[in-house]
Parts: sequence; C-alpha cells; structure tokens
Amino acid sequence: MIKVYGMTASGNCYKVRMILELLHKKYEWREIDVAGGGTRSAEFLAMNPAGQVPVLEITPGRYLTESNAILFYLAEDSPLWPQSRYERAHVLSWMFFEQYSHEPYIAVARSVQRFLPPQHPRRAELPTLVEKGHKALQLMENHLQDNAYFTGLNFSIADIALYAYTHCAGEGGFDLVPYPALRQWLQRIEAKPGYVPMTAK
Amino acid sequence: MIKVYGMTASGNCYKVRMILELLHKKYEWREIDVAGGGTRSAEFLAMNPAGQVPVLEITPGRYLTESNAILFYLAEDSPLWPQSRYERAHVLSWMFFEQYSHEPYIAVARSVQRFLPPQHPRRAELPTLVEKGHKALQLMENHLQDNAYFTGLNFSIADIALYAYTHCAGEGGFDLVPYPALRQWLQRIEAKPGYVPMTAK
Repeated sequence: MIKVYGMTASGNCYKVRMILELLHKKYEWREIDVAGGGTRSAEFLAMNPAGQVPVLEITPGRYLTESNAILFYLAEDSPLWPQSRYERAHVLSWMFFEQYSHEPYIAVARSVQRFLPPQHPRRAELPTLVEKGHKALQLMENHLQDNAYFTGLNFSIADIALYAYTHCAGEGGFDLVPYPALRQWLQRIEAKPGYVPMTAK
Repeated sequence: MIKVYGMTASGNCYKVRMILELLHKKYEWREIDVAGGGTRSAEFLAMNPAGQVPVLEITPGRYLTESNAILFYLAEDSPLWPQSRYERAHVLSWMFFEQYSHEPYIAVARSVQRFLPPQHPRRAELPTLVEKGHKALQLMENHLQDNAYFTGLNFSIADIALYAYTHCAGEGGFDLVPYPALRQWLQRIEAKPGYVPMTAK
C-alpha cells in the first residue's frame, strides 16, 4: 500500500492526502515530527536527501518527493489530469505559479504567524510576504472571475495545489473578503465527494 | 510559427530557446526589454497577467506561461519526456525543486550581482542566497555522482531546467570547483547536437 510521510499541519502534505481521498485510494499516513528533527534523521534523508515532507512511498524503497510532482503521479490516469496537451501544460503552469509566486508568500506568512514566537525577528518579513501574497491572490481572483477552475470547466490537480495554502491563508493574516470569485471556488472544492479538511487524521 | 517573448539574459527564457534548438523547431524570438517596462505594458499583460517572461505564443492569441510548463508542452511528444510514469514524475520533481530550491537562490544571486549597483541594499541578501544555493548544488552533485542525468540514463527537460541557471552560477558568486560530477554533467549537455549558448540571439 502507498505510504505518505507527512506533517498534518503542512499544506504541501495536505495536497497529497486530499488527492488520495478524492480518488478513493487506500494509503497509510506516517506523521513526521518536523519540529522535532524528523526530517533530519539518517532514515528520513535516505528517502529524501532534501529533508522535506511530503514523501510518497510507492512501493517499498521507491520514493517520490515534491508535493506537486506527487499530485501529477497520482492523477495522471484520472480526470484530475486533462486530456488535451494544452490544458495539461496550463495545469502545470498554475502549479509552478503556486510553488514560485504563491507558497513562498502565503504559506511562509502562515508559518511565521503560527509557529514563531511574538518577538521573532522573522516577523519583520510579514509586510512584504503579505503584499506579495495578495498579488498572487488577485491573479487567482481575476482568473476565477471567468473560470470555475484553473483549467476552465474542469477540476484538476492545479486546483488542489492552489487550494492547500489558499483556504488557510487567513492564518497568515490574509483577508479573503476582497476575493469573491476565489471564495466561491473554495466552496466548490469543499463540496466535492471525498473532500477532507486539512486537520483530518 | 511559435513565438517566444523573452529576455536573452534570463535563464528561464534560455530554457525555452534551448529546447526549441535541441528539438530543431522553428520559432520567432521577440526580445522584451524587461528593465524598460516591457513586461508592464497593457499589451504584454494581456498575454501574461503575471507580467513575466518567457511567454510562448503557440498560435495567435494562444499563450502559455511559466518556463517549466513551456518545457513540458514542447517536450511531451519527444524523448525529452520519459516513457514511464514514475520517471515522468521524477522529471517534474526535479523541475519543482528547480523553481523552489534552486532558482530563488542561484538565479537571484546572479541577478543581484549583475544588475544592481554596488551599494544597493539588496546586496546584503547575498550571503544567505549563496549559502542556500550551495545546498541546492550539493544535492545535484550527490545525485549526479551516480547518474548521468536527473532521470538516470536519459537526458530530459529536468536537465534543461536545471542547466539554465547552474551553468552561469559563477556570475552569482558560486564556485563550481567543489562539484566535479555537476561540471561533467554541464559538459555532457554542452556536447549535444543543437546546443546553443545562452547569449545566442
């Protein structure tokens, strides 16, 4: 059976749980204590030399890393990966946007707010993180004003990738009220059969 | 004919030129003056609301953004995209690594060194950028000690994505001498038929 090595509070790990539940696949979840050094052990680094969660274990000893590459692997034979080459490329375009222009601001702001003490010097980064995060949210809003999902009419792994840290952006200090189309998109995803919230174990 | 809107000095744009040359595809290159506001014009933002190069124009009015998604689109029916699903996922895993853990340090250090004046405050970021960039280079070196390319025996778009900013890392202050397997990998790519250097117009 597929195993996921992940941390429940991580949006990147939640992406993997979310697709497995949506596709009704069986899997085993191994919780990794990242704050306690769980990604720094020799055993973990043998699975992923980059020392990051999530890691997918496909069969014993056969690993895959990077949350969005894991989404691709799990989706490729499902309706979550489009039929047309142009749409497939657009799915990946939004997924690279997520990792380059969204996660480094929206997820990092949440991480700073949630996990660092009140006087931590990294809190000085918050205004910049929030400003750049809002740019990403506005681009998403503009797209969703004319499209139900990131590839148009069909739900795909681009939506899962972007949902993970967008739906909990409030924890990083982002107010989603100015983004009505984006909030409707969040609701469309939360209504899907098999949807699980991030805190589910 | 395919059009590329790009900036020659950008590694992300060079990826697109490189694959088009390696696959012997015809294309038209439109140089964008990024420093002069070329990505901020209404005309450009209509092609890519994120205001970034490169942009691929597949047919008139049909655009694709994000360099690594463009690589996927151009490679999907070529030997640069593997036959096996597991290898395809690994290609994407390295490409997401490139955008999240490599480009933000190695390309940004180069950009600060090359394009900002000597007293610019962002130069204070350089020690951190260089430290994190070396982590990415060491992960690549470790992988390449046992593998000719990032997916093992076969050259793929993961190699093109990682080559773009690695081969010019010296311009960002990175010494590549401690990475012999990586330097051999650079040479293997530079020996390919159709290879063009970054400065080619």
